Amino acid sequence: MSTATLTQTPGQSRYGKLALALRDRILQGEWAPGDMIPAESALAQSYGVALGTIRQALSLLVEDGVLQRRHGKGTFVTKGVDGASMMRFFRFRGVDDGSSETPQSRILSSRLRRATSQEASVFGLPPDAQVLHLERLRSLSGEPCLLETIVLPLPLFGKLAESDTEVWDDLLYPMYQQRCGIVIQKTQDSLSFSQLNATQAKRLKLAAAHPCVQVERQAFDMAGRCVELRTTRGDAFSFKYTTQLQ
Amino acid sequence: MSTATLTQTPGQSRYGKLALALRDRILQGEWAPGDMIPAESALAQSYGVALGTIRQALSLLVEDGVLQRRHGKGTFVTKGVDGASMMRFFRFRGVDDGSSETPQSRILSSRLRRATSQEASVFGLPPDAQVLHLERLRSLSGEPCLLETIVLPLPLFGKLAESDTEVWDDLLYPMYQQRCGIVIQKTQDSLSFSQLNATQAKRLKLAAAHPCVQVERQAFDMAGRCVELRTTRGDAFSFKYTTQLQ
Repeated sequence: MSTATLTQTPGQSRYGKLALALRDRILQGEWAPGDMIPAESALAQSYGVALGTIRQALSLLVEDGVLQRRHGKGTFVTKGVDGASMMRFFRFRGVDDGSSETPQSRILSSRLRRATSQEASVFGLPPDAQVLHLERLRSLSGEPCLLETIVLPLPLFGKLAESDTEVWDDLLYPMYQQRCGIVIQKTQDSLSFSQLNATQAKRLKLAAAHPCVQVERQAFDMAGRCVELRTTRGDAFSFKYTTQLQ
Repeated sequence: MSTATLTQTPGQSRYGKLALALRDRILQGEWAPGDMIPAESALAQSYGVALGTIRQALSLLVEDGVLQRRHGKGTFVTKGVDGASMMRFFRFRGVDDGSSETPQSRILSSRLRRATSQEASVFGLPPDAQVLHLERLRSLSGEPCLLETIVLPLPLFGKLAESDTEVWDDLLYPMYQQRCGIVIQKTQDSLSFSQLNATQAKRLKLAAAHPCVQVERQAFDMAGRCVELRTTRGDAFSFKYTTQLQ
């Protein structure tokens, strides 16, 4: 393990600075997603700080979702979000447990286009930047269940733009990681109710104006950048979502 | 602060037993919702255990939602769920921010009836037990927005059953706490899509068969008992819910 020194900046707590330093080492790949980081005592020694300071820094990174504590095991770099997480909003009929089966994926269309001003702003791109625009159909047991529009910023996803969508995997997030080195660490999904237009309905084998639940997703990488915009539509009668508040 | 001793039970960790002991003291009311509990060092000393053991016990209670840690402040007994939490699933038109305004509440009907076998099972009651059955309409700026059916077990909610519903507060959970000593500590909400029947539609000033989002709630007290069953229905076009995954 390399050692590091912390220069004190006015207005920033010692543990806040330490948290940033540790996050940088994760972003640089010193510890990969799923890796256990060194013991608190070893980190405290290497930075020359008290154990309590290291604990506060790690707690900040746990709150941010960069690290996860496992009881009696240690502290681990978050593995990232599973690409099947969209399925937690639906329970499809005729499927035993929609949340456990990975749907098959088919890319219906893939093209490069200029980012809208809103997309450029969300992705932190210049106004004339390009994005990769995908239409994707997900199916369970051969039956279409979710229709998706996915927008990815370039040049970040350049390697995906060049590749043949026919051989893409069913899950996109592991592919983002393997081909582009991007770990999706957090998603924000905004759910609302809508009705399918004629084209969407046809893709999903439903009638035009059929009720649907629409999920607007922003996905973020380990550095907190938004790197994916996605709109997913599925039959409202298959919508089922359980959440706890405490 | 009283001191306590821990007897060792085979098959249970020392910190697990300590967590149960601490939870009992909270349930007995020694520390009320919102109270800060004593420092880790003081607790460790009073139980004659290592600091690490106390920390593990507190972590379990934080995971259970009984305690909350606040950075640089201390560890607090959870205040309980806010009675307005149902509003986080909706954004009503003509209302600036549905989640911040507390809707007005009107109890449409209140009656005692025998529990169904499912209710008796969920509440842990004998088969012939009684429940309080409420119909409730919630409105924003005078416009009806949510229709609710609420089932509460007796004798736990006996004091509410005896009281005049005309003078009830807009929020039920603070009333559960003040009148019956029950703190709602966790809710589990299961969302699905449905359509209003004629009676429901009339209450909400919508057309029969109008699309609605239906929330099936189980609410739990600090001891982990289910103490409320609730079904809430609202206009599907007002449904709006944002959730993060990391």
